[in-house]
Amino acid sequence: MAASVPISKTIYLGAFAHCISLANLEICARGAIGVDEQGLIQFVEKEISSPSDVTTKHPSWASAQIVSVDDGFFFPGFIDTHTHAPQHPNTGLFGKTTLLDWLETYTFPLEASFEDTRKAGRIYGNFVARTLSHGTTTCAYYATRHVEATNLLTEICLERGQRALVGRVCMDRLSPEYYRDADIESAIRDSKACIDYARKVDEKGEIVRPVVTPRFAPSCTAPCLAELGKLAREEGAFVQTHISENTGECELVKEWFPESESYTHVYDEAALLTERTILAHAIHLSKEERRLIKERGSKISHCPASNTALTSGCCPVRELLDEGITVGLGTDVSGGVSPSILEEARHAIWTSRFVAMSAPSAPVATLNNAAKLSTAEALYLATRGGAAVVGLEEKIGGFDVGKEFDAQMIRLGSVPEAGDYEGTFGDEGAGGPVDIFGFESPEEKVEKWVYSGDDRNCAAVWVRGRLVHKTARYKV
Amino acid sequence: MAASVPISKTIYLGAFAHCISLANLEICARGAIGVDEQGLIQFVEKEISSPSDVTTKHPSWASAQIVSVDDGFFFPGFIDTHTHAPQHPNTGLFGKTTLLDWLETYTFPLEASFEDTRKAGRIYGNFVARTLSHGTTTCAYYATRHVEATNLLTEICLERGQRALVGRVCMDRLSPEYYRDADIESAIRDSKACIDYARKVDEKGEIVRPVVTPRFAPSCTAPCLAELGKLAREEGAFVQTHISENTGECELVKEWFPESESYTHVYDEAALLTERTILAHAIHLSKEERRLIKERGSKISHCPASNTALTSGCCPVRELLDEGITVGLGTDVSGGVSPSILEEARHAIWTSRFVAMSAPSAPVATLNNAAKLSTAEALYLATRGGAAVVGLEEKIGGFDVGKEFDAQMIRLGSVPEAGDYEGTFGDEGAGGPVDIFGFESPEEKVEKWVYSGDDRNCAAVWVRGRLVHKTARYKV
Repeated sequence: MAASVPISKTIYLGAFAHCISLANLEICARGAIGVDEQGLIQFVEKEISSPSDVTTKHPSWASAQIVSVDDGFFFPGFIDTHTHAPQHPNTGLFGKTTLLDWLETYTFPLEASFEDTRKAGRIYGNFVARTLSHGTTTCAYYATRHVEATNLLTEICLERGQRALVGRVCMDRLSPEYYRDADIESAIRDSKACIDYARKVDEKGEIVRPVVTPRFAPSCTAPCLAELGKLAREEGAFVQTHISENTGECELVKEWFPESESYTHVYDEAALLTERTILAHAIHLSKEERRLIKERGSKISHCPASNTALTSGCCPVRELLDEGITVGLGTDVSGGVSPSILEEARHAIWTSRFVAMSAPSAPVATLNNAAKLSTAEALYLATRGGAAVVGLEEKIGGFDVGKEFDAQMIRLGSVPEAGDYEGTFGDEGAGGPVDIFGFESPEEKVEKWVYSGDDRNCAAVWVRGRLVHKTARYKV
Repeated sequence: MAASVPISKTIYLGAFAHCISLANLEICARGAIGVDEQGLIQFVEKEISSPSDVTTKHPSWASAQIVSVDDGFFFPGFIDTHTHAPQHPNTGLFGKTTLLDWLETYTFPLEASFEDTRKAGRIYGNFVARTLSHGTTTCAYYATRHVEATNLLTEICLERGQRALVGRVCMDRLSPEYYRDADIESAIRDSKACIDYARKVDEKGEIVRPVVTPRFAPSCTAPCLAELGKLAREEGAFVQTHISENTGECELVKEWFPESESYTHVYDEAALLTERTILAHAIHLSKEERRLIKERGSKISHCPASNTALTSGCCPVRELLDEGITVGLGTDVSGGVSPSILEEARHAIWTSRFVAMSAPSAPVATLNNAAKLSTAEALYLATRGGAAVVGLEEKIGGFDVGKEFDAQMIRLGSVPEAGDYEGTFGDEGAGGPVDIFGFESPEEKVEKWVYSGDDRNCAAVWVRGRLVHKTARYKV
């Protein structure tokens, strides 16, 4: 499998960019990153005058392989902290529904069909290839309630070398009878089976880790949630679930958990609110709930594209960040319509602007400029923020000595003097969707990539120094 | 030039889709459209059982050329009712600015550099090729204040065969001295020169038409606006300008035109509010202003992507439509970050959802479902709506007998049984960004294209039956 292929020492030569803090994107136009046989970053040179500079400084790297980029830059791999692999075939199908009728109409019937493992293999194979092609090197996946299909997703991620959290989805109510755990015992037994499988095929969890996955509070009875909390503790496993996405859902939780002080308390009472918990959406939380989440050290996955498509609401991300909560981005396919974290970063920026224009249709809106996310901040959420959400902040998220090399090579091309490409737009090799005229600063090139780039610009992708995706534009 | 190339009678065979009313998207899975040597649609068959069916019904077409699509559908060409061709190199560069500081920082310096005609040629050539590649068959362009560069844009559109309105931008104040019309006389003389040129190279205006283009009220003194109104009337020309985009701009208009009842009245008093007037943005208009626009028969270009990026506001499109105002979509590059009307249609849908969630950060938002645009409605704005905005509703916008054939061939590919494409995502020929699994209905295929498609799916583009763009995926 890709993750354990032996690799040779490699120097990644050329421009690179990464986030060094929430507000600061560092761009080095003439950089060099040395990655050893284990995929660890051994040196980072930020300003070299020539390639020989590097080997003069690091003589033991004289015979290292060179991978260079001259019309773009290296960027850390993206981290998708929340998505549903089985829902991928429903991408773009949602009409005017909101969360609860959307689940009933589109989601449950499709997920239930993953009883068919062959179908699951085709869809999962396709989706993992898609997310990799968009530069996603780590992905927190929801699977379905089926043990066999969930284990297949684990295998595919391991085989392709994409870091993943893979969760078998638990639910003992709300969903239709044809797609529900028969009882708590079987829910726990099946979840345990998926955890065991993941730990068998990847003992140290270097690539794939299991994650305890109650769909969300309305889908699970209180005793079921409590047993899942116990399981997560016993297994030392991550937890992922949804919280406070839709106002109808919030009402349901109030009604079905009358003893609990809040939605957040429902999870806390089941011991599901841990340092290893990823809560998706978190739109309609009270200040008190956010305080509790902060106190417990739980993390939040912000899914703006999905929240807009299903009119769930606008998550006030800036407030979460100001309160010190750890936030990453989630594509939330198929609530979200794209498997691309780059596209999600754009949506995070747009949503922050809608928050800034809080009363959008008022004749004279007063802008709340503080609510706006900058390009740098959106990229931080997509990389270091996401790494912290999935508990890998020591290993990935940026180009630091000692971290593992999870990266993408971004190529941008350049507009020919004649202007057009003689009708070759839309074809491979024609420069992709970003038009670089030659008068852009390094900062402006990154901005252009963020606002108009797509998978065509992602020429190659590495996880732990292993090449896990490339296009015809990647030439060593 | 492409527009006058002789063509042979052609039958476009396969699925097609188009909007037959604001709410209704018609999808014919087994269609045939007959286009004659003039590029006119002579027949539309909505349900054929076999290709021979067509020639049995239309024997004189037995030797016609056949262009067929089997993994997608034909769709009317898109109409972009508002964009700025010279601003294309600034795409993605806007930071956290809003309209007035954005103009000062990014726009005016770039536009001023179009004094250099060689630079203009490169950028215009690139941009026209880009918009064509996204299926835009008609485009309302703002150029700059330079006569020579503006005439070059006219030539390029004519040469490439893209229908266009091309406007020399007028402004006798607000912009810096280095980029301003010296006086009203020269503003009118230069505008007239561009009108004359367009009418010389395309006498009947079949492809390119001139358009009188005051940038917007704050950029023009009242006498200048009045002279431009007079010029438009004398020339029987279209008018395009901006209105009520940003609250700071609205305040400025109030201050600089104290005698006028409203922003809309400023244009009306200058005789610029005509049936041939395209007003971009129209976000913060009063009901009275909208009534006046409706009464004058002026049209509105909705530019949601730009309005979000520059936090200008959310145009309440549903209200405009309910009031009977004609609306189309505009990419508004480089306020907007994409030259694609498909992307703009998505933004129109997202913006309508933000309007629906009118108090986005409130803990319990009440949804205004009536504000949501459907997929069909967004596509209507992108085609028939846009056609009516640019005065071509009798000629283009849908597949009706007697209309000219402006169309795009959408190809979708299909996911192989093995799921992934062996790492070929991002390359040409790998199916593009839309994943079709084979269980989708024709309606669902269109939805998938709208929400995840891009220029890779636009295999070929025709204007008046002439092929004006194709990719390697287009095989006759």
